[in-house]
Amino acid sequence: MTPSASVVDLRRDFHRHPEVGFCEFRTASRAAGILADLGWDVLVGADAMAPDSRLGVPEPTVLDAAYRRAARDGADDRFLPAMRGGLTGVLATLRGNRPGPVTALRADLDALPLAESADEAHLPAREGFRSLWPGAMHACGHDGHVAVALTIAGRLADRDFPGTVRLVLQPAEEGGRGAAAMVEAGAVDDVDVFLAAHLGLGLPTGSVCPAIPGLLANSKLRATFHGTAAHAAMAPERGRHALLGAAAAAVAVHTMPPYSGHETRVNVGMLTSGTSSNIVPDTAVMLLETRADEGAVNEELERRVRATLTGAAGMYGLDLDVELVGSVTTAPNDPDVARAVEAAARAAGATVTGPGAGIASDDATAFMRRVRAHGGVAGYLGIGADSPAPHHATRFDIDEAALPVAVNVLDRVLRGGLDLS
Amino acid sequence: MTPSASVVDLRRDFHRHPEVGFCEFRTASRAAGILADLGWDVLVGADAMAPDSRLGVPEPTVLDAAYRRAARDGADDRFLPAMRGGLTGVLATLRGNRPGPVTALRADLDALPLAESADEAHLPAREGFRSLWPGAMHACGHDGHVAVALTIAGRLADRDFPGTVRLVLQPAEEGGRGAAAMVEAGAVDDVDVFLAAHLGLGLPTGSVCPAIPGLLANSKLRATFHGTAAHAAMAPERGRHALLGAAAAAVAVHTMPPYSGHETRVNVGMLTSGTSSNIVPDTAVMLLETRADEGAVNEELERRVRATLTGAAGMYGLDLDVELVGSVTTAPNDPDVARAVEAAARAAGATVTGPGAGIASDDATAFMRRVRAHGGVAGYLGIGADSPAPHHATRFDIDEAALPVAVNVLDRVLRGGLDLS
Amino acid sequence: MTPSASVVDLRRDFHRHPEVGFCEFRTASRAAGILADLGWDVLVGADAMAPDSRLGVPEPTVLDAAYRRAARDGADDRFLPAMRGGLTGVLATLRGNRPGPVTALRADLDALPLAESADEAHLPAREGFRSLWPGAMHACGHDGHVAVALTIAGRLADRDFPGTVRLVLQPAEEGGRGAAAMVEAGAVDDVDVFLAAHLGLGLPTGSVCPAIPGLLANSKLRATFHGTAAHAAMAPERGRHALLGAAAAAVAVHTMPPYSGHETRVNVGMLTSGTSSNIVPDTAVMLLETRADEGAVNEELERRVRATLTGAAGMYGLDLDVELVGSVTTAPNDPDVARAVEAAARAAGATVTGPGAGIASDDATAFMRRVRAHGGVAGYLGIGADSPAPHHATRFDIDEAALPVAVNVLDRVLRGGLDLS
Amino acid sequence: MTPSASVVDLRRDFHRHPEVGFCEFRTASRAAGILADLGWDVLVGADAMAPDSRLGVPEPTVLDAAYRRAARDGADDRFLPAMRGGLTGVLATLRGNRPGPVTALRADLDALPLAESADEAHLPAREGFRSLWPGAMHACGHDGHVAVALTIAGRLADRDFPGTVRLVLQPAEEGGRGAAAMVEAGAVDDVDVFLAAHLGLGLPTGSVCPAIPGLLANSKLRATFHGTAAHAAMAPERGRHALLGAAAAAVAVHTMPPYSGHETRVNVGMLTSGTSSNIVPDTAVMLLETRADEGAVNEELERRVRATLTGAAGMYGLDLDVELVGSVTTAPNDPDVARAVEAAARAAGATVTGPGAGIASDDATAFMRRVRAHGGVAGYLGIGADSPAPHHATRFDIDEAALPVAVNVLDRVLRGGLDLS
Repeated sequence: MTPSASVVDLRRDFHRHPEVGFCEFRTASRAAGILADLGWDVLVGADAMAPDSRLGVPEPTVLDAAYRRAARDGADDRFLPAMRGGLTGVLATLRGNRPGPVTALRADLDALPLAESADEAHLPAREGFRSLWPGAMHACGHDGHVAVALTIAGRLADRDFPGTVRLVLQPAEEGGRGAAAMVEAGAVDDVDVFLAAHLGLGLPTGSVCPAIPGLLANSKLRATFHGTAAHAAMAPERGRHALLGAAAAAVAVHTMPPYSGHETRVNVGMLTSGTSSNIVPDTAVMLLETRADEGAVNEELERRVRATLTGAAGMYGLDLDVELVGSVTTAPNDPDVARAVEAAARAAGATVTGPGAGIASDDATAFMRRVRAHGGVAGYLGIGADSPAPHHATRFDIDEAALPVAVNVLDRVLRGGLDLS
Repeated sequence: MTPSASVVDLRRDFHRHPEVGFCEFRTASRAAGILADLGWDVLVGADAMAPDSRLGVPEPTVLDAAYRRAARDGADDRFLPAMRGGLTGVLATLRGNRPGPVTALRADLDALPLAESADEAHLPAREGFRSLWPGAMHACGHDGHVAVALTIAGRLADRDFPGTVRLVLQPAEEGGRGAAAMVEAGAVDDVDVFLAAHLGLGLPTGSVCPAIPGLLANSKLRATFHGTAAHAAMAPERGRHALLGAAAAAVAVHTMPPYSGHETRVNVGMLTSGTSSNIVPDTAVMLLETRADEGAVNEELERRVRATLTGAAGMYGLDLDVELVGSVTTAPNDPDVARAVEAAARAAGATVTGPGAGIASDDATAFMRRVRAHGGVAGYLGIGADSPAPHHATRFDIDEAALPVAVNVLDRVLRGGLDLS
Repeated sequence: MTPSASVVDLRRDFHRHPEVGFCEFRTASRAAGILADLGWDVLVGADAMAPDSRLGVPEPTVLDAAYRRAARDGADDRFLPAMRGGLTGVLATLRGNRPGPVTALRADLDALPLAESADEAHLPAREGFRSLWPGAMHACGHDGHVAVALTIAGRLADRDFPGTVRLVLQPAEEGGRGAAAMVEAGAVDDVDVFLAAHLGLGLPTGSVCPAIPGLLANSKLRATFHGTAAHAAMAPERGRHALLGAAAAAVAVHTMPPYSGHETRVNVGMLTSGTSSNIVPDTAVMLLETRADEGAVNEELERRVRATLTGAAGMYGLDLDVELVGSVTTAPNDPDVARAVEAAARAAGATVTGPGAGIASDDATAFMRRVRAHGGVAGYLGIGADSPAPHHATRFDIDEAALPVAVNVLDRVLRGGLDLS
Repeated sequence: MTPSASVVDLRRDFHRHPEVGFCEFRTASRAAGILADLGWDVLVGADAMAPDSRLGVPEPTVLDAAYRRAARDGADDRFLPAMRGGLTGVLATLRGNRPGPVTALRADLDALPLAESADEAHLPAREGFRSLWPGAMHACGHDGHVAVALTIAGRLADRDFPGTVRLVLQPAEEGGRGAAAMVEAGAVDDVDVFLAAHLGLGLPTGSVCPAIPGLLANSKLRATFHGTAAHAAMAPERGRHALLGAAAAAVAVHTMPPYSGHETRVNVGMLTSGTSSNIVPDTAVMLLETRADEGAVNEELERRVRATLTGAAGMYGLDLDVELVGSVTTAPNDPDVARAVEAAARAAGATVTGPGAGIASDDATAFMRRVRAHGGVAGYLGIGADSPAPHHATRFDIDEAALPVAVNVLDRVLRGGLDLS
């Protein structure tokens, strides 16, 4: 892969090597290398993110295995060592040839823990760029995000733009775990205009939604139920059945009512307990989340979900630990940014559209809030990309025709030097 | 480890290297080696068990990993290759110096998928023979069973007994998955007197219960719920939530009523579903079991449990596969055998006692039924062994003072040439 | 109570005597009497509604008891007999003194099966007009609706309006059970302009929302689970536990996901099963509902809920009957009607406002659809009324200052002869 | 009905007029009248039971309705008034014509809240003595118990027996609510030999089991969950859903494991919540029970069940009240009594048998414990009676051929003057 690789080639390379949050050793180090070769100032590791502000960091053995796999298979040795232990953020900065504001674009790096479809109807399978790494998949378009950002970086190497452009390559967007640590390291403290873009979102290829509203606040929890093991036939009464407590909790969490006048969501997305049919399981681990279109509502949901977990543990005589492993807040779109994006989209020949039906969360909002707190402006745009399946499904795929559209629109916005007067 | 190793040394060696069902490559090959060195005729692999009659065989990758680990760490190369793929049964036969019946002793080889306690109060931890292999543990005394059988084999090498003695070293007793395959291979077709012995069972060290009644029929099921993945926030309605269906099933299975006049049990011992909090999980896998003190009652329980699983799948729009991965029936104790054991126990200075409160299942009953069908007699005895925790708990441990008692009593029974006239 | 009673007096009389759906014998017959005394043409009984098109009609014994209670306590004997058996709709028509369209106003008559709060902080309790009839309560403002309609009827007795005014007094709005039967009887077949108004809806006293959007489609179901009774200790295995099946169904129904891009609701609002702790209950009855802002989505919800009930019955070996006891569809507001209401509201000095956050269903949509099908126009407006508690809560109460506002605004609309050109 | 009515006539009269616990006004007053007419000393009302020691007394309105119904339909006016408010126990004493011990026989009076089968295959329906009172039924044979006791009372009127005989007619055996109050009033303080007999229990007509073992300790609980009502569509998030909390509790209670080495039972036998599908229910009431063959085990079960209820309330943000409404302990059978019964049974031509499979609870154990505490002896016997359906089923019926057997055996035991030397 070279700086001049096409956006499609870049995307397929990343698609083949999907890495989940804080494990993006190959993705991040290769991106850093490409950016450095293009002349950008590059910061990685503890210079790009505050290690202690990360949430939901995987176990050391998981990080190590991912690190070794990346080292074996394409990581850039110049940047890899600084990333050890999951410091997989990258900041790249380039000054233009005339004065102007600091404009930042965020791209996220991580894949999802999903087994990608091997069906012939799935383009990556048919064309041979399906995930090489079992149990991980780019099912949310982040492979495209990185490819687009690096392609724009190549174009901007001509320095024909006002002010300064910053690329913020963020790990662990899934789960809302990575942005806060980059914010904490000061990644956007000097930024005047902040942009995050997402491919797909139910919008058709060729369209751009200048301001995606309703990004949801989101709390991710890991709940661990501790019971007592026992022989299931000889002395079941001496056990305390962690699996049953967790199962009851999972069902009860999903009975949370919708909040009138709000978009709210809960989900128990992972549950694992026990090893054998003849043992009362002593431990159960659950990953779950709450979301709402208002921070205070999400906080109330989180409180109610925690009470539900506590009650379920009490029902089955279990102890309970609940850890916050991800946290995302809301942020509004600044109209100035939306207008600039809309103008760039029209100029680039894209169709301007409203938001699709889907709603989601993105911890890009952490950057947006910091930039606004410092007097800057921020926006979150959607770039249409047809997909045969919804985000996070095993047959999700972005229409690659959307990639040049994204490059053209974002290049134009970044290069435009958004006039904030 | 040599043929002359003490029963305690043998037990601790096996305890350190616990292997779950059909993965007993080290345990079985070493046992075969010791028996061969002692002059016993040894059969292993497909000669000792019918491969297709095994239930609940692990995935090939799991078997391979266990095989390689055993090869690296102490397996006997003379017997290991024939066991590849999980053919880990051993049959050993020795003819005495005078005529008499064929008498068999069953010992089971397998450990449990439990993480052994590291607490200082746990003797194996304190004395340094705790499991070296994470996630597996001898928590049911089978390490003692093998050690006792091998020690008796050494004693019987003097051939000072009537008839023939057969040692049946069975894999995968846990889950009721191994005996049927050895029965199918003819392991006990010529046996006149069959004995199975179990350490512990709530009986105190120094005691022997000549006939354990009420061994339970047992069905082990693996249920897989298939749903549809979806983004948990953007389109939850497009998902079909396998985790919730499995959770509802788990709770409902445990509401099965007790059967008046019978001992019955159900247990969901393992449930795993999903990977990430923001995805609707598309698959859930569950291990569960039913037990009853009468075969027909267990069949009815199994039918009702299957209906419960089907109903839960229907509630959540899921597809369901249910596989029978273990099956144990009941078998009575022949009074003649019980009398012989009682006499031997008294002669060996042990206390004769009734059964403890605990009840369990053991697919030794498959051997017992076959032997009885051919006109032989069979019995299942308990040999007391104090333990600080119940069977299948992470701090289970057998009092090693029980091992010589077991050796003395069983040696005497086997050598006695049970008079069936 | 006389035709000249004040709107507040009327409302308090109805509030004291709350009657649930199809039991509004006192309310409907008194209203009919007042209207007749004012000179309106009045139709009741089978002339006002098609008996077989009613859904969720109570048991005959319940209807009879309510009928007798009404007969004892204030019903109007001129109209009561025709209403026997639950034919409690009233149609009243008055022709104005000049040509014009047929304009209809719907008011609903029924109360809810709730025990009204006796707290001193609750105005009806403090002022002595709390429900006299245990277990029933006007907790949705329908008492106000009838009082307002009758007060307007008194004003319109001057006939100083164009065209014809029709008052449609509908039973059993709660549960969506009464409108269809009046539609079927032709109640609005000749109507050009149809209005339904609701007090409260989270809007403040003094405000009017000219068009309440998002009325939800709604399906009401009664599910009956049939099991087998048994002694809970002597033979629990011979029982089939209807209570548990219903309980599992109730929880599972509430795990239905929200539909992205839609407002959806499910609720299990009533469950009753069993009589005694020592019997396995053989029957369980449940009332539940689905709602959605689009008819097709509601139909899908209803299908999924029915599948959930079927699955739960299967889990517990139960038979299941599901009966549709209420059905409401959606209907849009015609902009012409909204504009006319807005003008009337402003002329009457009310504040014009948008809709509150709350959403609900109303089978007024059945009238609206029929009127539109015949070429007419229809609208649903909200008239603000402060309440210390939400609709359907035991301390719900409408601010009586809202009643004259409602009278003034609606009088103006009806008298205006909505110009449809 | 006269003192000389046959045992079958007596039984059918009581069968037609079933009265649930503490409502046995007709049954008890008629029995008292017959006994008085036969010359027995009769105590009723507060002389026979301590009012404050009763558990689970129905609401005053329920008691009053039952009282009035009895007054209208056959109660004995001489004894009825003293029973007002549910003091429906009767003590009757007769001294024999020679010295001897005080021997007591307990008979229970109450029916069950079940709707009796109207099927032609059900003898009481076919022969016209089916329950006249809807929702109540003698489905446990207590109608036979009273008839047998009164018939024996007629025979013993000859006073041809040693010592004294006491008949203890106890209300509210179902639920374990009545015996304690009679014990507290001193009903058996002077008793040397105490007998309780039960018809049926799975034993065939013509057989007698001299000592029913394993009567279970039993705790009856009434749990009330308090939530918050809300409109299910407009503001579900403002509700706290009592129905769901109770449903989750019901299912979780039934997942209680069996206790190895013990007979244990749990049952949720009644649940009622809510009124309407469109309201979040604010209250749910549940009747449930625990049983075990050892008092301490039942206490642990009760503790765990209470914790389960508390946890479920916590899951759904509910308040919880739990009231103990019935409590039964265990009691052993004295071998002397069993021997005497066995001898009497043989002398009467009955078959002596062991206990059937069924197990149950009976608060006769409260009398048994008190008698033993005072140095007496006590026993509980079973008298076979075929039935086409199990106890507590709506087609339960005792074979009337069992009634003379019961009379003959018990007459013999009471008249024998059990020799305790």
